[in-house]
Amino acid sequence: MNDILNKRGFASDNNSGVHPTVMEQIMKVNRGHAVGYGDDPYTDEARSVFKEQLGSDTEVFFVFTGTAANVLGLGGMIRSWHSVLSADTSHINSDECGSPEKIINCKVLTVETPDGKLRPEYLSKHMHGFGFEHHSQPKVISISQSSEMGTVYTVDEIKALADYAHSNDMLLHMDGARLSNAAVYLDLPFRAFTTDAGVDILSFGGTKNGMMYGEAVCFLRGGMPSGFRYLRKQSMQLASKMRFISAQYIAFFKCNVWKECAGHSNNMAKMLEKRLREIKGVKITQKVESNAIFAQMPRKVAQEINKEYFFYPWNEETDEYRLMTSWDTTEEDINTFSDKLAILVENSPGDGEALIR
Amino acid sequence: MNDILNKRGFASDNNSGVHPTVMEQIMKVNRGHAVGYGDDPYTDEARSVFKEQLGSDTEVFFVFTGTAANVLGLGGMIRSWHSVLSADTSHINSDECGSPEKIINCKVLTVETPDGKLRPEYLSKHMHGFGFEHHSQPKVISISQSSEMGTVYTVDEIKALADYAHSNDMLLHMDGARLSNAAVYLDLPFRAFTTDAGVDILSFGGTKNGMMYGEAVCFLRGGMPSGFRYLRKQSMQLASKMRFISAQYIAFFKCNVWKECAGHSNNMAKMLEKRLREIKGVKITQKVESNAIFAQMPRKVAQEINKEYFFYPWNEETDEYRLMTSWDTTEEDINTFSDKLAILVENSPGDGEALIR
Amino acid sequence: MNDILNKRGFASDNNSGVHPTVMEQIMKVNRGHAVGYGDDPYTDEARSVFKEQLGSDTEVFFVFTGTAANVLGLGGMIRSWHSVLSADTSHINSDECGSPEKIINCKVLTVETPDGKLRPEYLSKHMHGFGFEHHSQPKVISISQSSEMGTVYTVDEIKALADYAHSNDMLLHMDGARLSNAAVYLDLPFRAFTTDAGVDILSFGGTKNGMMYGEAVCFLRGGMPSGFRYLRKQSMQLASKMRFISAQYIAFFKCNVWKECAGHSNNMAKMLEKRLREIKGVKITQKVESNAIFAQMPRKVAQEINKEYFFYPWNEETDEYRLMTSWDTTEEDINTFSDKLAILVENSPGDGEALIR
Amino acid sequence: MNDILNKRGFASDNNSGVHPTVMEQIMKVNRGHAVGYGDDPYTDEARSVFKEQLGSDTEVFFVFTGTAANVLGLGGMIRSWHSVLSADTSHINSDECGSPEKIINCKVLTVETPDGKLRPEYLSKHMHGFGFEHHSQPKVISISQSSEMGTVYTVDEIKALADYAHSNDMLLHMDGARLSNAAVYLDLPFRAFTTDAGVDILSFGGTKNGMMYGEAVCFLRGGMPSGFRYLRKQSMQLASKMRFISAQYIAFFKCNVWKECAGHSNNMAKMLEKRLREIKGVKITQKVESNAIFAQMPRKVAQEINKEYFFYPWNEETDEYRLMTSWDTTEEDINTFSDKLAILVENSPGDGEALIR
Repeated sequence: MNDILNKRGFASDNNSGVHPTVMEQIMKVNRGHAVGYGDDPYTDEARSVFKEQLGSDTEVFFVFTGTAANVLGLGGMIRSWHSVLSADTSHINSDECGSPEKIINCKVLTVETPDGKLRPEYLSKHMHGFGFEHHSQPKVISISQSSEMGTVYTVDEIKALADYAHSNDMLLHMDGARLSNAAVYLDLPFRAFTTDAGVDILSFGGTKNGMMYGEAVCFLRGGMPSGFRYLRKQSMQLASKMRFISAQYIAFFKCNVWKECAGHSNNMAKMLEKRLREIKGVKITQKVESNAIFAQMPRKVAQEINKEYFFYPWNEETDEYRLMTSWDTTEEDINTFSDKLAILVENSPGDGEALIR
Repeated sequence: MNDILNKRGFASDNNSGVHPTVMEQIMKVNRGHAVGYGDDPYTDEARSVFKEQLGSDTEVFFVFTGTAANVLGLGGMIRSWHSVLSADTSHINSDECGSPEKIINCKVLTVETPDGKLRPEYLSKHMHGFGFEHHSQPKVISISQSSEMGTVYTVDEIKALADYAHSNDMLLHMDGARLSNAAVYLDLPFRAFTTDAGVDILSFGGTKNGMMYGEAVCFLRGGMPSGFRYLRKQSMQLASKMRFISAQYIAFFKCNVWKECAGHSNNMAKMLEKRLREIKGVKITQKVESNAIFAQMPRKVAQEINKEYFFYPWNEETDEYRLMTSWDTTEEDINTFSDKLAILVENSPGDGEALIR
Repeated sequence: MNDILNKRGFASDNNSGVHPTVMEQIMKVNRGHAVGYGDDPYTDEARSVFKEQLGSDTEVFFVFTGTAANVLGLGGMIRSWHSVLSADTSHINSDECGSPEKIINCKVLTVETPDGKLRPEYLSKHMHGFGFEHHSQPKVISISQSSEMGTVYTVDEIKALADYAHSNDMLLHMDGARLSNAAVYLDLPFRAFTTDAGVDILSFGGTKNGMMYGEAVCFLRGGMPSGFRYLRKQSMQLASKMRFISAQYIAFFKCNVWKECAGHSNNMAKMLEKRLREIKGVKITQKVESNAIFAQMPRKVAQEINKEYFFYPWNEETDEYRLMTSWDTTEEDINTFSDKLAILVENSPGDGEALIR
Repeated sequence: MNDILNKRGFASDNNSGVHPTVMEQIMKVNRGHAVGYGDDPYTDEARSVFKEQLGSDTEVFFVFTGTAANVLGLGGMIRSWHSVLSADTSHINSDECGSPEKIINCKVLTVETPDGKLRPEYLSKHMHGFGFEHHSQPKVISISQSSEMGTVYTVDEIKALADYAHSNDMLLHMDGARLSNAAVYLDLPFRAFTTDAGVDILSFGGTKNGMMYGEAVCFLRGGMPSGFRYLRKQSMQLASKMRFISAQYIAFFKCNVWKECAGHSNNMAKMLEKRLREIKGVKITQKVESNAIFAQMPRKVAQEINKEYFFYPWNEETDEYRLMTSWDTTEEDINTFSDKLAILVENSPGDGEALIR
């Protein structure tokens, strides 16, 4: 078992463990009784911290997973006859096994993008049929920050989308499973590119950035959507021992866990990018702005190195792979991996040139 | 804050924290990388432990909450046109905010019971309309062990319900949020009153008995229901860092946390029962067979003592209250509470006699 | 085939055909083009007629079936975390195969009644947990007029329920699949015991009373519930050739089809009641106030006469049967049936006395 | 009102009325009693007729609308974690207001096509993630025959899609709202391009081709999907007076109404196409193979002629319009319309040349 356990990799930032500071906070709140389901002082404190970060109108609700944060955040604001517009690479479209359709019963409409980022002009093909009862009504534009392609929206890009949404009587939703990585990249407070940029609903992720479990649905415009607490409960997302989620977010913000973790993983990604760019036969296909690297490499090389370092293929047709760094990625991980990869590519027939299309 | 934190009570067994052994195991698995979503060696081990406890045909899936365990366990086996028969006091009927209806879209049909326990003869009023397309088709009998009234089914009672279910082409589901308390009371291995007694689907609870979060859906008859993994994912119940749930169950079973915790809370309940029975003006209304005590007491007394010890009213019309003990309830908790209560009742006008109807 | 076709019976008022005046109106509108989906002049006219009958605030939407009228009427006003309170004999609970749970995903809570009619005092057991997120929120009281037991609410009874609902921030829904029969019995305009008595949502039925298909969802308090048109469409209840439903309702109201049909079927029910009361061994178990008769009779007798006259058992345990008259029931039907029944009962062992419990 | 009523147009084939032969059959079955909900001899006969047309393994279920036929046909075979692949112009994607998502809770994935017709090579981008629990599982390929663009699949094209589906453990669904038009165009029996070509599930439409209401869900491979009858009922699609739907289908097939109606509307479309092609400044954009014509024309011209002849814009950006002929379209309709259009275009500034891009 040890071998498997010790196997490092770049499969996902959720393959890493829990940051020690978070773990410490969990242990700290583990004394005495605390009323269940969020009526405890730790959860009060966590809510306050979110208001500090995102603005005093913020209403925050903790759930268990990023999928739940996205789906319930949307579900609090829309009905089954609405549609949500997103990039086809978005988590809500591609990685939640149809959870929006299952839980909200709405339609998800997608567009292709070169880099995982929506732009108003991409959306026009879905902006019709308003008021026409035969057609799902476009109601939310959903973006991911940082995106599933590792790219980061600028404040202006977000504002443009918010304006576009609001001028069409729609809302802007942000999937922030990796929000901290974007904050570090932009070097801005969270609020600057969420609440202040016009975002209405935010999923604020922690699990991929040093926490154990627990994500936050944030309604940024004041007031809880009517009935949201019931929706959370009946969607099986109300934690009984809530204090253990709250405690993590307290550490996350108050002890700057978010910054330390995201800063480190972003740095590691840049370092990995640098090393990979040195390898002829490996091609970086997306800008590296957070903790994801997309790269083409010869398939046989990928298969070989996968035996030691696990990561996922992104597009099998184009031999494109996704490498994620994490808060616990080490320089040694990167150097060992890159050294090995360089050797494998060098020895690979055709030097991998064939695949660089 | 300290005051509130230190406030002890009998509100629910989920107001307690995490057992140290469980916490230790969580820390133990928090090293290195582990593949997410359950494809890790800890989860493998946890699955094996469940098979040991419940039989080798057991298929176990971890989810976050007891509501999720119940709803998805049922959802794996039934369709929207089926009905689930339960006691009206059942958690699936009264405490899940309509989650079965929301997630499975099925009907929940209930019967009144004196003690929270179903018996075949209670169910006959719902056992009709089979094959009639206008009528939801009865498909599952759902019982809670221990029940929401603190009572425990004997093996024979469970077998009778299983036979009744199976002879009607139905299934027997058991909500085991407090299964350990029943196991201790019955002094039987889990298997004896679940798999071997004819139960088909089991929710195996840990959170109320020393764990932090995480419950288990157990299909006991071999084979995963078709598509269950997708149902779990789209129902937002697939944990990314699964190892932290699995680790808890490993400690739960391998270190006998379940037995220690449930044994203790059962004992505390018996001790509390004994003390309450000594108080004239307080009336125990249900058999104390697990860690719940139901008692009538004068309303003003209840309100007064609630300021120091929190617990919930069960039936406001009859001044009936529910007191739950927990793995961390102390003898001091009970003695202090009982002493205080005795004094309050004694000084209460009419000695509380009025309410004993 | 002729034999089967000619077989008369008392199975249901939907076993009858279409009233000639309705059929005539259908043919009358079957010329030229009419814009689909309700944007045609016939549908405009039908909407006006409803406003005349129920008040100018009425918003009416046509759907295909009574189940759809009930479910979408409720669905327009409530969310998945709400509960609907009804008699356990209600159509929404017993005869729609869980359609409210499937389509609205809400909870239906029931009470037993002696006569199919709700009374405020019956409901108290469900009137709790308001604001408590673990509990489905009671939001609608649903009654059937006439009831599934053939009984009719007085105006005062309806007002009492409306007051009770409104004082608890709830709504009153009326399933009027057989509303015309109640209007005739009460000898009141529809408005007097619906809009003016405090009903908020009404299903107005036509199919059981001379129409071919088509039922009406009526929101009586002004304004369409937000998004209702989309809900109807996505619930597959928007007719393309809407004029053919509208035409039926025009004839229904303007040519007094409703009164002629319901008056006749009510009269036939009274006549049948009279004849049955003369038969020793047959016991009428409910007041006959509309077009349903509930009667106990020896099982063998029922089985024998069922070969010629079809009707359904209501409660097999008590040998209770339901007989429905219709707009096309003839005096001959009743006399032939009653004569035959009298003979069968007379010749039945024990004279049927045994069953009169 | 007469003016409006007499206004002819090309808005949709559902703006026409009911064919006299169908109406006659409706009147014919309107005598005596018939057991409700489909247990009547007319429905038996209608089921037989479908078996004759589509093969003896066919299981047919009547519902009210084309949306219902599509959604329940799919719903009988798939679960919420499945995805359905279709053209983005498909009715299930664009014109059902998210009904598949609402009722089946599944995902609909789309591809762009030049002519409304799917081809296997278009689908590859969605054919991945099989067995991966994070991804909705592709389960059905859905095509429309004739397509929403008026084009018709050949038998070979259907077979290719069926083979592609089956080799991926998927099913082929056909939306046959306008199946008769395709049958006439192909000059083939229905069976040849449905059952025999590998289609698994078929929506067989009648309303757009001379019927009043009622569509058919046809499972072509033998056996009813488990529980389908309950799904239909709880989805509010079980007609009580079923004989009136059945009767229509009897006339539809036995009196060749389908052929007469579809043949006529196809002919009228060809005639209209011919006339439009003569008008310089009007451009036909799709092959005319059934009863739809897609044409670009100057916007002002379209707006002007719309005052007399109603039809819908298809794509406002490209000034493309959809014209549908119907079973009751007359040569006079076409000649009057075309004459008028020719004059309007001629007098239009720039002769409309500008818009032909």
